[in-house]
Amino acid sequence: MASARKKVWVGFDLGGTKMLATAFDGSFKALGRKRRKTKASKGLEAGLERVVGTIRGALDGAAVAPDRIAGIGIGCPGPVDMERGVVLETPSLGWKKVGVKAALEEAFGCPVAVANDVDLGVYGEYRRGAARGARCVVGAFPGTGIGGGCVYQGRIFHGKAASCMEIGHIPVAVDGPLCGCGRRGCLETYAGRLAIAAAAATAVQRGQAPHLLRLAGTDPADIRSGALAAAVKAGDLAVERIVRDAAWRLGWALAGIVNLMAPDVVLLGGGLVEAMPELYRGEVERSLEDRVMPSYRDSFRIAIADLGDEATVTGAAAWVRRTVEGDD
Amino acid sequence: MASARKKVWVGFDLGGTKMLATAFDGSFKALGRKRRKTKASKGLEAGLERVVGTIRGALDGAAVAPDRIAGIGIGCPGPVDMERGVVLETPSLGWKKVGVKAALEEAFGCPVAVANDVDLGVYGEYRRGAARGARCVVGAFPGTGIGGGCVYQGRIFHGKAASCMEIGHIPVAVDGPLCGCGRRGCLETYAGRLAIAAAAATAVQRGQAPHLLRLAGTDPADIRSGALAAAVKAGDLAVERIVRDAAWRLGWALAGIVNLMAPDVVLLGGGLVEAMPELYRGEVERSLEDRVMPSYRDSFRIAIADLGDEATVTGAAAWVRRTVEGDD
Repeated sequence: MASARKKVWVGFDLGGTKMLATAFDGSFKALGRKRRKTKASKGLEAGLERVVGTIRGALDGAAVAPDRIAGIGIGCPGPVDMERGVVLETPSLGWKKVGVKAALEEAFGCPVAVANDVDLGVYGEYRRGAARGARCVVGAFPGTGIGGGCVYQGRIFHGKAASCMEIGHIPVAVDGPLCGCGRRGCLETYAGRLAIAAAAATAVQRGQAPHLLRLAGTDPADIRSGALAAAVKAGDLAVERIVRDAAWRLGWALAGIVNLMAPDVVLLGGGLVEAMPELYRGEVERSLEDRVMPSYRDSFRIAIADLGDEATVTGAAAWVRRTVEGDD
Repeated sequence: MASARKKVWVGFDLGGTKMLATAFDGSFKALGRKRRKTKASKGLEAGLERVVGTIRGALDGAAVAPDRIAGIGIGCPGPVDMERGVVLETPSLGWKKVGVKAALEEAFGCPVAVANDVDLGVYGEYRRGAARGARCVVGAFPGTGIGGGCVYQGRIFHGKAASCMEIGHIPVAVDGPLCGCGRRGCLETYAGRLAIAAAAATAVQRGQAPHLLRLAGTDPADIRSGALAAAVKAGDLAVERIVRDAAWRLGWALAGIVNLMAPDVVLLGGGLVEAMPELYRGEVERSLEDRVMPSYRDSFRIAIADLGDEATVTGAAAWVRRTVEGDD
């Protein structure tokens, strides 16, 4: 049944600004990778062609003939119909109900699995990273919003028609700030990067954050995770308080999730966590200790994601392999 | 392999004040049932003997010989180690780490499955009641506390060492009221019956709830679901507002769970909901419409539990049958 030549599994991460394809061998060694800008403004057809071209680029780089591909896994932002392989809605790309699975299966003639990018990132960490071997891992990735994902008993936890784990839109305060989703008091209005950057910009304007002023100025759009981390390190106490408060609030909401889903691993990742891993670990830990029910208190660990940009492509390749070959 | 005589499955509901055993045939027709007081104060050994005696009583009533029992499922309050069949902690019984599975297997010589009583209630509704056929059902049972359970793809969603879905202890406000668990702002401090009864008793003392005064007096311990429902019906607007507020807050927290777990059925049950089903359905619906992410909005329905006291025994019998015979 298997070809004489070894199988190659392709993982793909389709982001709003960049896309990444990696070709893996059977033991998850990366054979070749290709990264390109997404150029979302060029529309759907050009976008799909770009995906195909980027996968071809990764294969060319590894001198792998396309007929050796045993499967392609692709992580896409926003809700995904995993069963049919349809991207339901990606504001960052402007795609709506796009049959990514069908398009790529036609282009490459191999099985294709489509899932949410954060779900596949968590799955990647579960298979090859910081959450290896977990029975149930809940991942939270504070970034512009707050991505979430869950792998339960070896499978991505998901809804009937779409991915789930919208951690950023858990309500945490009845009268909280307005959220981009139109409601009030969603977790990401307290713990997302946009909220942190807005508060930090205010601190800069108040003259309380001289290092951040030097590093990033007063425009929240320029206040990225790296600048926040550098300002904290340089001694901007006001910035440190803002970030700690956001991390604590993330932990506060995660405590509710632990009381619900009893994961054995709480996984933290994303730009903010990568820039300030110990701050995040500390605040989330403090918050969880304070709020988790006694019976769960010793039943989980906090893990910091360690695959970085490789998490989603790794998870995508592992996931399509799982759908093709079953549990391994 | 099967005996010539038809198999009997026993479901058991072990409550803090009463216990119920029901013997079912293979098509879930109740052959016999026995209900007794738990008498928790008499200790562990007497308690287990009482469980055995109650099961024998249900069998005797149905003229079923004990050797026809194919399995016993038992629902217990508090966290349960489902794999080992150990009740970890039941404040209402005073039991700690009790090997219920081992004890009953010895007494009856048949397979025994132990799970949390609320989980089995949700499973019962999923198999034979209002949540039949759901892919993912999240159940919330506001009572003294707020019980929760989830059946995901045909199985009880649970943690490594214990049941989960502690809906009552989701944090909903940083500076909320003190909870019995020692923390602040847990959902049940807003939406549990104790909270409702305390607020209603205050309304009575303020002279705002004349019907409730007549029906139950000023002691919160006497303000049960039935009295609350009767006072609302008789026109105590202050009581109605208190209950609606609690139901709305329950829905508010459930919205976060829908955004996380994307269930296709949100199941409501328990004494308060049974007493005021339309009030609860209306407020929870309103709250969910307001807070659920657009992509999940049309993907679930609200169901009112309809098995009442039979939910847990039905679920217990179905669950042990599933563990013995596999998916059916």
